[in-house]
Amino acid sequence: MSKSQVVELPVLPAESVVPCCPPITSAKLSQADAEKMAVMFKALSDPVRLRLFSKVASHEGGEACVCDIQDVGVSQPTVSHHLKKLREAGLLTSERRGTWVYYQVAPSVVAAMSAMLDLRS
Amino acid sequence: MSKSQVVELPVLPAESVVPCCPPITSAKLSQADAEKMAVMFKALSDPVRLRLFSKVASHEGGEACVCDIQDVGVSQPTVSHHLKKLREAGLLTSERRGTWVYYQVAPSVVAAMSAMLDLRS
Repeated sequence: MSKSQVVELPVLPAESVVPCCPPITSAKLSQADAEKMAVMFKALSDPVRLRLFSKVASHEGGEACVCDIQDVGVSQPTVSHHLKKLREAGLLTSERRGTWVYYQVAPSVVAAMSAMLDLRS
Repeated sequence: MSKSQVVELPVLPAESVVPCCPPITSAKLSQADAEKMAVMFKALSDPVRLRLFSKVASHEGGEACVCDIQDVGVSQPTVSHHLKKLREAGLLTSERRGTWVYYQVAPSVVAAMSAMLDLRS
């Protein structure tokens, strides 16, 4: 029984992760905001995760499942692992449909990261 | 003699680090670009480094030295270490003036990170 057990990770609603933070030139980051943002940047600090994130973001319909992703040079379980990491950081959301979990970019979270680094603001 | 030796790290001109990359929704990242961007995101994946980066970016005149930074809860050598990491990743530039090294945000590098995550593009 335990062998076939599926561990379901909690899915954070995008709203619980952002919005954060003011543009980095306008104010000093608080410790709490810095910890929150560091988790998101850490999720993108791996080349494979960045490429997966880019694949999901640029995929037709703005979503992709593991079944859509073949050519990043790592195994399907590794792809799944990295997609879950991106979801846990709030950068992707996910939805199970039939056999596959489909991942979508969480636009408000990614926009917050972009805005934070937008020096024109 | 060796005790007082100062190891000078190479300072990359901002132009050698960027520009990179198209918005993440518009195209899949190449392996080379993913590796380049991952280094930058990794530099911002630590809460202390993020706060230091924010302090430099928001400091009067757009630059700061270790002497300007007191309240991040880590020692001055640790502050120096993290500022060097940010410089090595291309996010800060530096200039020695007298006793102190002054750090400035590398605007083109940070703008490239922001643009990459700009989903409106």
